[in-house]
Amino acid sequence: MKFLQNVTFLTDFGTAGGYVAACEATIVRISRDARVFHISHEVPVGDVAAGALVLARVAPLYPESVHLAVVDPGVGTVRRALALSTARGDYLVGPDNGLLLDAAEALGGLTGGWALDAARVRTTAGLPAGGVSSTFHGRDLFSPATALLASGSDPASLGDPLDPVTLVRLEPRSAARVDGGVTAPIIEIDRFGNIGLGADFEGLTSGAEGSLFLVEVEDDGAPEWTARLARTYGDLRPGELGLIQDSWGQAALTLNGASAAQCLGVGLGAMVTLTPATGTEMHSAPPAREKPQEED
Amino acid sequence: MKFLQNVTFLTDFGTAGGYVAACEATIVRISRDARVFHISHEVPVGDVAAGALVLARVAPLYPESVHLAVVDPGVGTVRRALALSTARGDYLVGPDNGLLLDAAEALGGLTGGWALDAARVRTTAGLPAGGVSSTFHGRDLFSPATALLASGSDPASLGDPLDPVTLVRLEPRSAARVDGGVTAPIIEIDRFGNIGLGADFEGLTSGAEGSLFLVEVEDDGAPEWTARLARTYGDLRPGELGLIQDSWGQAALTLNGASAAQCLGVGLGAMVTLTPATGTEMHSAPPAREKPQEED
Amino acid sequence: MKFLQNVTFLTDFGTAGGYVAACEATIVRISRDARVFHISHEVPVGDVAAGALVLARVAPLYPESVHLAVVDPGVGTVRRALALSTARGDYLVGPDNGLLLDAAEALGGLTGGWALDAARVRTTAGLPAGGVSSTFHGRDLFSPATALLASGSDPASLGDPLDPVTLVRLEPRSAARVDGGVTAPIIEIDRFGNIGLGADFEGLTSGAEGSLFLVEVEDDGAPEWTARLARTYGDLRPGELGLIQDSWGQAALTLNGASAAQCLGVGLGAMVTLTPATGTEMHSAPPAREKPQEED
Repeated sequence: MKFLQNVTFLTDFGTAGGYVAACEATIVRISRDARVFHISHEVPVGDVAAGALVLARVAPLYPESVHLAVVDPGVGTVRRALALSTARGDYLVGPDNGLLLDAAEALGGLTGGWALDAARVRTTAGLPAGGVSSTFHGRDLFSPATALLASGSDPASLGDPLDPVTLVRLEPRSAARVDGGVTAPIIEIDRFGNIGLGADFEGLTSGAEGSLFLVEVEDDGAPEWTARLARTYGDLRPGELGLIQDSWGQAALTLNGASAAQCLGVGLGAMVTLTPATGTEMHSAPPAREKPQEED
Repeated sequence: MKFLQNVTFLTDFGTAGGYVAACEATIVRISRDARVFHISHEVPVGDVAAGALVLARVAPLYPESVHLAVVDPGVGTVRRALALSTARGDYLVGPDNGLLLDAAEALGGLTGGWALDAARVRTTAGLPAGGVSSTFHGRDLFSPATALLASGSDPASLGDPLDPVTLVRLEPRSAARVDGGVTAPIIEIDRFGNIGLGADFEGLTSGAEGSLFLVEVEDDGAPEWTARLARTYGDLRPGELGLIQDSWGQAALTLNGASAAQCLGVGLGAMVTLTPATGTEMHSAPPAREKPQEED
Repeated sequence: MKFLQNVTFLTDFGTAGGYVAACEATIVRISRDARVFHISHEVPVGDVAAGALVLARVAPLYPESVHLAVVDPGVGTVRRALALSTARGDYLVGPDNGLLLDAAEALGGLTGGWALDAARVRTTAGLPAGGVSSTFHGRDLFSPATALLASGSDPASLGDPLDPVTLVRLEPRSAARVDGGVTAPIIEIDRFGNIGLGADFEGLTSGAEGSLFLVEVEDDGAPEWTARLARTYGDLRPGELGLIQDSWGQAALTLNGASAAQCLGVGLGAMVTLTPATGTEMHSAPPAREKPQEED
């Protein structure tokens, strides 16, 4: 078996209460030389899709690793615990709720899957077989399994193989063509207030830089905005809404030096429709950081 | 002397301003191969008891380490600076305000204690003896002492031995029996809004799963809630308050997919009384994430 | 060339979305043994001066390192990307917007500077020359350059030398004498609510401990406060505003066990005037954590 020392770790635990550290400690106690990299522990609480997105983007940038991910609202229920192997040589460990599958794809595709057996994992790790809480499998099951894989354990010694078609999958969140435009979900809002859309930038924008798009947010009763196709934040005037290609190749709405999400009053999951502007019905974005006016 | 390379680190500094990094840098400059693990830097500001709880829970999960903990409202006053040794072979470093003692217990019990002498610590570390600020002993005294212990220094070379009975202790926060029920303080609210109580779950709940408990929050004038004894989050219906055994073996109140703390409007330190329900005076929890209604 | 393994990392990215991890992953994939220390990723969004302050304070505490810093509102525009060498033997990597220069000074002064060439950096790192996004140079340019310098690459192989006089500098934020007192900007508000001023403590306070100072916040229409010169937090009575020497040698306003910033209602950048009190016109600070009263 391969000997993987690198571990990456993503959760929705936050770092305040020491829950991330409890997992890290467990990993390092079992696999003394493991190097743990923290991808994010601020995934929105219980938001499996948001966690899956960050994991799929970032895991492939690390060298070959065991990637531990725990966003797990179903902890302690019958949902399975997984170890997956991928074509690039990485392992993924976490709950069977769709969290791991986009990352598996990004790592070259699934090559194997096992349903972790808590007693086998814990016994192999030298822990009491029965000491599994019903609410913290991150510490009690997933971390020991991660440490063992990082130390070269065969996943087949930790659980039974499973059929990939039985894996729980997330509903796809993709863009749809609507007469003349595209409707796409908001899949990310970053610390700068940029609005990341689940839509490929290239497919969306055949237009030249400077083209204008009408932006409509579902059901919010607010007027449409106009966004200008731009290359980067600094190409926009203050208060001007921009449509850019983000660093993952997708379309994003942005304001230069202000929060587009706050300005448009939108959150994760809302649907946004972008339509090439014909040039007559434009509305400027409001001044940076102000809420839209009631009247148009 | 033993050669400990692992250091764990807990504070209430937050990570924004670089104060955690200033300590870590100081440790690594003195002890080049030290491996620093971050337990938490989001302990509520100045809350020694909250810091002590996280430290006592998480420190024992790491391999033998020097555990540096700084929640230190008395920095720069006459309060002593401590190095403690424990039966498991770990050291604890931090202020003499009770922060370290539960962790010492969890690490097998105290085997020695020293009052750190700033001049001796700094001279041994190759730092100017006098360069101790009055507000940042984390960087100026505790980190050098931690690094030296991690490199194998004898604690007796860093300060004078002290009598353990002279150590400052926190007031115990334990549960009390009250007619038919138990009153316990809220000792933790996690990122999910779970309400952790300072009460052993086993002692509290002899009842079978599904039993009901009346939940009363001190002096809040709000009606009582009813909580159902459950095994994990996923066993609860939406909006149903649950009483579960948390992953540290204590009693916790929880809502499935919502914040129990927000719903009940409670914070750290408040007292909660749990009484087995007789079956007549039950109130449902309000819909998830909504505040309790005024009327019953 | 020197072989530096230590990397420090400072940004305004926050850790939620995995952007910090994307950079760290890129560094570790190129330079497998690099040890990445995180100084802060919570620099206020786009606040180059705030980032420069933390970097200059903390970077010199680490052993010789490559210091990567990205607070970069001008990403993707014509602003240059820099590698700087310093007298102590460290490198600094980041945008040409003033972020790095105070740290360079604190590391012994500049000894060389290079304008990073993206194609050369990426080719040397084994990455596709063209894969540079317009919004995430942290991942696409600065991290590869950092990894290469950490692995011993000659900076001259990554870009053309530049003339230090052409580097973009931040406007200095220093204190000014005003009749009898000193006016200084608020340069830091820490997690405890301490108000850090851009004024040397020694120069400001010739008075003995216990001296009183009038504190006036620019243009806020609020009454003056009185602050007492003190050594540390614990020397202050509850609700008493203190003027102390902070751990960086500068003047700071503080409350014992409460947030001075919240109490005075001030934020970063505001100007504060301190004048020695003559003894008659004193006002007490309000009770801890309460807002100032309207009337005096």
